[in-house]
Amino acid sequence: MKEKLYIVKIGGNIIDDEAKLSAFIKLFAELFGNNSSYPFGGRGLLIHGGGKVATKIGDKLGIESKYVDGRRITDAETIDVVTMVYGGLVNKKIVAQLQANGCNAIGVTGADANLIPASKRPVKEIDYGFVGDVKSEQLTVDCWQLLLNSGLTPVVAPLTHDGKGQILNTNADTMAQEVAKVLSSVYEVTLIYSFEKEGVLLDVNDESSVIKELKWEYYQQLKNPNSPSGVGGKIFAGMIPKLDNAFAALNSGVRKVIIGKAEKLDELITGASGTSIVNE
Amino acid sequence: MKEKLYIVKIGGNIIDDEAKLSAFIKLFAELFGNNSSYPFGGRGLLIHGGGKVATKIGDKLGIESKYVDGRRITDAETIDVVTMVYGGLVNKKIVAQLQANGCNAIGVTGADANLIPASKRPVKEIDYGFVGDVKSEQLTVDCWQLLLNSGLTPVVAPLTHDGKGQILNTNADTMAQEVAKVLSSVYEVTLIYSFEKEGVLLDVNDESSVIKELKWEYYQQLKNPNSPSGVGGKIFAGMIPKLDNAFAALNSGVRKVIIGKAEKLDELITGASGTSIVNE
Repeated sequence: MKEKLYIVKIGGNIIDDEAKLSAFIKLFAELFGNNSSYPFGGRGLLIHGGGKVATKIGDKLGIESKYVDGRRITDAETIDVVTMVYGGLVNKKIVAQLQANGCNAIGVTGADANLIPASKRPVKEIDYGFVGDVKSEQLTVDCWQLLLNSGLTPVVAPLTHDGKGQILNTNADTMAQEVAKVLSSVYEVTLIYSFEKEGVLLDVNDESSVIKELKWEYYQQLKNPNSPSGVGGKIFAGMIPKLDNAFAALNSGVRKVIIGKAEKLDELITGASGTSIVNE
Repeated sequence: MKEKLYIVKIGGNIIDDEAKLSAFIKLFAELFGNNSSYPFGGRGLLIHGGGKVATKIGDKLGIESKYVDGRRITDAETIDVVTMVYGGLVNKKIVAQLQANGCNAIGVTGADANLIPASKRPVKEIDYGFVGDVKSEQLTVDCWQLLLNSGLTPVVAPLTHDGKGQILNTNADTMAQEVAKVLSSVYEVTLIYSFEKEGVLLDVNDESSVIKELKWEYYQQLKNPNSPSGVGGKIFAGMIPKLDNAFAALNSGVRKVIIGKAEKLDELITGASGTSIVNE
């Protein structure tokens, strides 16, 4: 039987909120720290998003944040800022706090130990700049095993590299999905997308409207604005790529995908809270 | 017989100079990369200083750099800047370049894997702020072995942690010495302080005045301005703590300490260049 592994992604909104982040870290260490009894029978791996602090620091440095269709354009100055902020400030703060809570964390980017090879996104209509698309076929389980077999808890910043010396800005949801997929060959992986909301909501303004179980068919209806079912367009914007990632993970051997509130990590795992993504 | 390990510290002046840094990285990977034949019979571990980029970025962010007696005061804003710059920007650039040159590097701070426990320097006449003094007695070989036994090449940023969640700014020379000391119990350690100069110079303005071999007695004469030997005061300022560190390392089991030019790393090891510190 495969060992269990919980891959937890925390979103930027949690990172921006010191109290929420600290509560999350405490809970993560209770569940997956070296002093824990591993109540869910497996270890943890944490992947974090960026948060708004990169934009704030970029602004102060006089670097304008540029967006096209809501996606950040990562020019040469911006990649330095996100490397500093995601790979340095955010990552090391999380690591130091996990260590303080008895979890032997090691902060990494996709460049470290060649954990996540990527290539710079090709320029088509839009030049996204130094943005990385994960090279799934080059992602190997061995690199991750070096850390996991050592008993370390990887804490991954949303950065990859092109193998030619260039760091690339990369979407943390996608990274989590890719890592979950590759590690599914040796672990029974549960992938948890945790953020500031209770789960996938039927009404974005009502935290009690959590969809407990989201199946593929229903998702198709929810995301299609012209769906004849009356629920069309209920899922939109940033939730769509997140859910596309979730279903892609399930299709590639990941055992379970859960979406919900970071501070309720334990309840997400037991099913007492959040949305379970179900591929049938 | 113990395996050989080369602990190489590179100074800030190398980090600030893209061409020099890139030449150094290429050479380091040739000597210690996964595709090398390990010409010196052992692997490498890299510890880097900070460089001036933290000051530049701090200036742009409107954070004033404060110094007392040439030592930086690390206030709450400054520790964030050095965490970003040393632990993120500088560290990950080096890692990505080492990876590009076939060296399986992993970038870490002293917080990662609890590699370097430290305590905030007590406030006496001067409050240095968030500066860490390494807790030698808590530094263990086991944490380092997790990485080294995995075949990874650690790249260490000059940051430690207090075990309570706080990152601390720490002198890279001291860190190199402390790590060299603890790893001497399991490796035959050569510690190399590499920087922009040819070695320890008898005349600071003459790069050809390298002292080939520096013994303890002679060092005492050189650093004492009132030395009766006529060479008194030839060694001063930043070179004194570096050399104190070097002799302390030799006194604690480190096999060899060499000081010299980063781009001549191979010659430093063969003895064709640089200053050998000799404890007799």
